[in-house]
Amino acid sequence: MRGEMKRLVNVRCRIALLGFGTVGSAVARRLTSGPSPFQLTHILDRRAACKRDSLTAADVIWTTRIEEVLESDADVVVELIGGVEPAADWIRAALLAGKSVVTANKQVMARHGAALLTLAARQGRQLRFEAAVGGAMPIVRTIGDGLAGDRISRIDAILNGTTNAVLSRLEATHCSIDDALADARSRGLAEADPSADLDGDDAAAKLAILCALAFGLRVEPAQIDVQSTANITALDLARARAAGGTIRQIAHADYDYATSTLTAWVAPVTVPLDSIFAGTTGPRNAALVTAEHSGETVVAGTGAGGNATAVAIISDINAIARDRSAIVPAPILSTDFELAPSHFEPAWSSLSLAEAV
Amino acid sequence: MRGEMKRLVNVRCRIALLGFGTVGSAVARRLTSGPSPFQLTHILDRRAACKRDSLTAADVIWTTRIEEVLESDADVVVELIGGVEPAADWIRAALLAGKSVVTANKQVMARHGAALLTLAARQGRQLRFEAAVGGAMPIVRTIGDGLAGDRISRIDAILNGTTNAVLSRLEATHCSIDDALADARSRGLAEADPSADLDGDDAAAKLAILCALAFGLRVEPAQIDVQSTANITALDLARARAAGGTIRQIAHADYDYATSTLTAWVAPVTVPLDSIFAGTTGPRNAALVTAEHSGETVVAGTGAGGNATAVAIISDINAIARDRSAIVPAPILSTDFELAPSHFEPAWSSLSLAEAV
Repeated sequence: MRGEMKRLVNVRCRIALLGFGTVGSAVARRLTSGPSPFQLTHILDRRAACKRDSLTAADVIWTTRIEEVLESDADVVVELIGGVEPAADWIRAALLAGKSVVTANKQVMARHGAALLTLAARQGRQLRFEAAVGGAMPIVRTIGDGLAGDRISRIDAILNGTTNAVLSRLEATHCSIDDALADARSRGLAEADPSADLDGDDAAAKLAILCALAFGLRVEPAQIDVQSTANITALDLARARAAGGTIRQIAHADYDYATSTLTAWVAPVTVPLDSIFAGTTGPRNAALVTAEHSGETVVAGTGAGGNATAVAIISDINAIARDRSAIVPAPILSTDFELAPSHFEPAWSSLSLAEAV
Repeated sequence: MRGEMKRLVNVRCRIALLGFGTVGSAVARRLTSGPSPFQLTHILDRRAACKRDSLTAADVIWTTRIEEVLESDADVVVELIGGVEPAADWIRAALLAGKSVVTANKQVMARHGAALLTLAARQGRQLRFEAAVGGAMPIVRTIGDGLAGDRISRIDAILNGTTNAVLSRLEATHCSIDDALADARSRGLAEADPSADLDGDDAAAKLAILCALAFGLRVEPAQIDVQSTANITALDLARARAAGGTIRQIAHADYDYATSTLTAWVAPVTVPLDSIFAGTTGPRNAALVTAEHSGETVVAGTGAGGNATAVAIISDINAIARDRSAIVPAPILSTDFELAPSHFEPAWSSLSLAEAV
């Protein structure tokens, strides 16, 4: 609750930041503006010399050396450099140095999440990763904690904000995908090279994380079939509209517990106009989780951008500061499942929030 | 994660259940069917003698005496008797007896939540209450934890599944509200006396809990303006439809931090057809949370019924079993705010998920 921080965080929690890009600078601004139970002590960035003047906080140590962070008295290391290496190595080293870690790194969590969570538990430290999937949309907590009392059988989700911004721009303006991309870039919603977004690789890594949380399965991102969204045109969208729908990049996974069969793919597919996915525009993300006892649960939120992702990071820092000895469950994942061939044809009828009354 | 329970819960967590109604019997069935890290040890119900044959679990002790539960070796007491007293007394007594508590009791949490959470923290025990608001919809975790790193300014939500089932039945069949109520009763979605649901008192208690979590304010349910939904007719719905909308019972709260002014009400209002609220039918619940950095976050799910509510209960039991010494934050709530007069006229434009692209 909002009033809690004053009381519970007697000692200010010391934070070291790895990476000062879009998300890192947003986190740094939040941690250094106004009264806060957190103290930003270190920022590591390979271009520390150029960037240090962009933050007006007197007592932050800028560095390019990970050793300086590992040897410091920081309590929590926030990893925002992206990519698998050296990020995974640095997270491992930070845990071994007795620090808790918050990361937004979907590639590391998809490939090494279970091993790193096990290491964190052995160290009596925490590894939290809400920001790795869905920006400010709290999907990691919803699946890993809020629905832990149910058996999840299916996930359908928009997990890539860049691609969703491009598709909904195409839909609204009938422009080319290159024009939509240029627009997304001008809004800070697309990288210079958006291929991992449009191809589906970014969403596949996020879906692999959700398969671990929801089904207890170790799924490599490369096992997830992807079909690119890069070739979708305004004409495709017009055809979808004529058929009562629109096109979204959907990440889909369903698991049949009886036969241990997983279906998992990322592809541009037609969604009904009255579905939550058609209503998800711009850089927003949305997820529809189907479970045995609770039926359909929806979460949706701002899926991209520095400020939204910083909310997930700071919520994770809050959780660590509130309870420094909290246990973040380390999963035991099974690889004993069959992968079903992907037809990119989910049963769309269940994607609509409307139900018979 | 799904695989965790085997490893982390070495000692089976012993559960005592207070109340064997719709939700209690659903929880009991879940706890006693198939392998489980939990052991249901006691069921207290004032009609224990009549009900004991309805559960085929050999080693459960049925009782009508709270003392028997307090003196037992149960680790977690699940309170599902409803109403303020004796529920609040029994929760207090269970915490004092060294037990953690899971409750679905919105009336107790709205009136005594802060004091009970403080007591739990002093006792080194946990009080969890996801099921008190929104059934399986994880709104308590979303506001209290997932968005803890942001500043929430507004909540709009459907929080009463019974009223929503009645309204969407009216909408679909143009029947009278009495016929819609009879239908809801036949589906187990309405009590014999649904006045607390339709009048808005049930949603007001839930909204008071959310105001504590979101704004750090101590709001008495009686301070929240309510307007009854009981007089809505098929004609009202037809008029709303002609104006491009439909009618839902909405719980609304917004807080202006600059002037410390709270607006909070529950009323039947017209919502746009393309909003998440119009798309929320039957006993579903939905919430739209607006915050400074993350913008709009949505959660929606099954808001009523034994099985859905049992999911929230068992997720809370999971969280306790996973980490028996976890800290559940006890809030320090402020009463230093002004209540603004209610006009029951929110700015509906922002209730649509669609945004400009």
